Amino acid sequence: MEIKLSNLTEINGLTKPTGTSALGMKLALSSGKMKPSEVLEECIANIDLYEEHLGAWAYINIDGAREVARELDNKKPSGALFGIPFAIKDNIDTFDMLTEYGTDIYLGYQPGRDAACVAGMRSSNGVALGKTICTEFAHRHPGKTANPWNIEHTPGGSSSGSAAAVASGMVPIAIGTQTTGSVIRPAAYCGVIGYKPTYGDFNISGVLANTPSFDTLGFFTNCVDDLVLIRKALLDESIPEIKKLSLKGARVAIAAKPYWEEACASSQQMIEEAAKVLKDAGADVFALEDQGVFENLSEWNIEVSGYEFARTLAHERRLAFNKLSKILRDGRMADGFRVAFSSYQAAKKNLELLRIKFDGVLNEIDFIICPSAQSAAPKGLDSTGSADFNMAWTSLHCPVISLPVALEKNTGLPLGLQVVGARNSDDRLIKFAEAVFKCLTS
Amino acid sequence: MEIKLSNLTEINGLTKPTGTSALGMKLALSSGKMKPSEVLEECIANIDLYEEHLGAWAYINIDGAREVARELDNKKPSGALFGIPFAIKDNIDTFDMLTEYGTDIYLGYQPGRDAACVAGMRSSNGVALGKTICTEFAHRHPGKTANPWNIEHTPGGSSSGSAAAVASGMVPIAIGTQTTGSVIRPAAYCGVIGYKPTYGDFNISGVLANTPSFDTLGFFTNCVDDLVLIRKALLDESIPEIKKLSLKGARVAIAAKPYWEEACASSQQMIEEAAKVLKDAGADVFALEDQGVFENLSEWNIEVSGYEFARTLAHERRLAFNKLSKILRDGRMADGFRVAFSSYQAAKKNLELLRIKFDGVLNEIDFIICPSAQSAAPKGLDSTGSADFNMAWTSLHCPVISLPVALEKNTGLPLGLQVVGARNSDDRLIKFAEAVFKCLTS
Repeated sequence: MEIKLSNLTEINGLTKPTGTSALGMKLALSSGKMKPSEVLEECIANIDLYEEHLGAWAYINIDGAREVARELDNKKPSGALFGIPFAIKDNIDTFDMLTEYGTDIYLGYQPGRDAACVAGMRSSNGVALGKTICTEFAHRHPGKTANPWNIEHTPGGSSSGSAAAVASGMVPIAIGTQTTGSVIRPAAYCGVIGYKPTYGDFNISGVLANTPSFDTLGFFTNCVDDLVLIRKALLDESIPEIKKLSLKGARVAIAAKPYWEEACASSQQMIEEAAKVLKDAGADVFALEDQGVFENLSEWNIEVSGYEFARTLAHERRLAFNKLSKILRDGRMADGFRVAFSSYQAAKKNLELLRIKFDGVLNEIDFIICPSAQSAAPKGLDSTGSADFNMAWTSLHCPVISLPVALEKNTGLPLGLQVVGARNSDDRLIKFAEAVFKCLTS
Repeated sequence: MEIKLSNLTEINGLTKPTGTSALGMKLALSSGKMKPSEVLEECIANIDLYEEHLGAWAYINIDGAREVARELDNKKPSGALFGIPFAIKDNIDTFDMLTEYGTDIYLGYQPGRDAACVAGMRSSNGVALGKTICTEFAHRHPGKTANPWNIEHTPGGSSSGSAAAVASGMVPIAIGTQTTGSVIRPAAYCGVIGYKPTYGDFNISGVLANTPSFDTLGFFTNCVDDLVLIRKALLDESIPEIKKLSLKGARVAIAAKPYWEEACASSQQMIEEAAKVLKDAGADVFALEDQGVFENLSEWNIEVSGYEFARTLAHERRLAFNKLSKILRDGRMADGFRVAFSSYQAAKKNLELLRIKFDGVLNEIDFIICPSAQSAAPKGLDSTGSADFNMAWTSLHCPVISLPVALEKNTGLPLGLQVVGARNSDDRLIKFAEAVFKCLTS
């Protein structure tokens, strides 16, 4: 077995400083070892080194961030994200930074208020550093961002800049959004932790809609435990932290469906190896019995996302149709106009019932594992890769965490392991993911 | 029985012209009897007459509307809303009109794009005439609008201006939003048709969120059939129109729960009389057997709406807390910070299962009737009345239509009859509502 974890150590020939986690920063800040301004300057130093190669940012607000950090320098640490710099995908509104939604149609656009998630992170004393590149309207037409592991490869999308910024140490936390695989895929391609929460857990007001029935926030970090800080910041400071969860006796299902046969040899090998290691750690590992859940899922997903996306962009369709990319017009938007309202309604209803059925399936399972994507990041920046491996879990509203646990043999690029939990079990899933990550990479 | 339908005939002593429906206008336009500019001028004439008394508008774009209408004058009629003027509640973004969300915090704010519903109405050749008064962030602090039937009484809220504008013939259609009772209540108080669709039927991107788990659009009209035009415009031109539905054999349940005992004598009498008339028309009328659905509904509603609303307004909480009204801060926002995340999650899950249970209850029922509100519009403009009679149906995601079928004896103000259908049965519900309206008012 040649697959092993490796940290990203250089970007375009430059040595990358060891990425610090938000939790590491928090400890340094709360113990007084570092001040918010010093933490911020480490991030800015990495931006200076790597941004010209990676193109992760749509807008960087260094002056604004420095001002906030300086104010925090004189305060007693408080708030879940005290002094932690973070980046925001550019389909999320910010009252003090341009928000361009990944399209020339909105060049120079300045919203009037912060999205709920941005205001929440700021209320927890996080430091907003800027806006990260998003594909066009969070669909498939790519922005300028390159993959930090090899700049000739895609970083994935649609949260391209958020994934690249965290992978290159420019920020410890970046907010993204996922409608199909827009967090998990770029996290896997860029070798960082990616987290797609249970649908509805996080307030998405102020986020440009794509497909409201599936849209969620998502987060990129270098450390699983950072996700706990984010949940405290945005949901409830008092969420009781679950103690470590043991893999001994954990019920782990391997999902071969719906797309196993499309996974590359390295991805399949990663799962087989992971299964072996988890078994050795005492987990009860078995194949997922899906009870037919995946049978029509893809069709229903396309009907719902097509129908909703085409209508979400009604304004641009009306006034800027020719400025939309061909892939957007001929892709999800065209899907939407092929779907009758009655089919859309039926697909939504079917998915609702399927989610409840899948809750039942997951009653007997602690978590599912499968590859985060078919393969490592494909070569070329003209496509962001496929979301096929993420579609099912997103449609089912399940929480998912992508863990960078292996490198692909031929390219040396990272592979992601997708850990999937039952709806509303995010806090447990995070602890299981932490245990899996340690087990597979130690 | 003294209760009977009466049309609003004067406003503050001025005679009101007979309100034209969108469907009536459409027929006049398609037959060439009227041009879009002439239809628009009728609306503007009513604005000139009544706006000073009613304060229905936050922003009127007469020049813009005239320009659009003039362009349509030279075109062959096409689109479900060809030449029909409409108003837009001021919590819904418009790219060419200010959007102030009912608060001084956003005085002069100009969004960058149209909400999906606005762009959709415009794409169907509707003529946007302006923005109507919304309570502060669509919560309870009222705006300047008065009730067209008696300007000393509230028009209801939060879609106050939309209801008043349609009731006074300023527009045939107005868009509103409902999170608890923000469409049905003002429709009842102002004596117009109000429609709250199945949750999720209409795309709400570009609408300022209140409680994402409950928020829907809503529509005000003077004629039930106008709702068919709106659904065609925003959902699918090809939605097959259901032929008339007969009340003969229709299964009609009267909902005594959850708040029957709070209804005023006139409201109770309205329901008793309606039951009698529907029975005479051949309907099978019986008491709703709710199977315990209402038992904890109110508590779960408050937990979900509190939790979500407090976070939706995270930006204003952070930067403009002192500019928020006391009722907002001490009301729903304070509710939100009393609710633990685990309670919020449990309430959402409970509601999800309850909706599926209620689908079962409604399998045996064509529609439910109950009062739209406790009473006619209360006196005074400092409160918009109670949404208690709407909370259950909104939480259950059911479509609801309010019909102005009676006048309250003492005040002469209108009373609304709420007609409730199963989720995803809106097209049928509209046809049943039409039959009920004709039956009760002929």
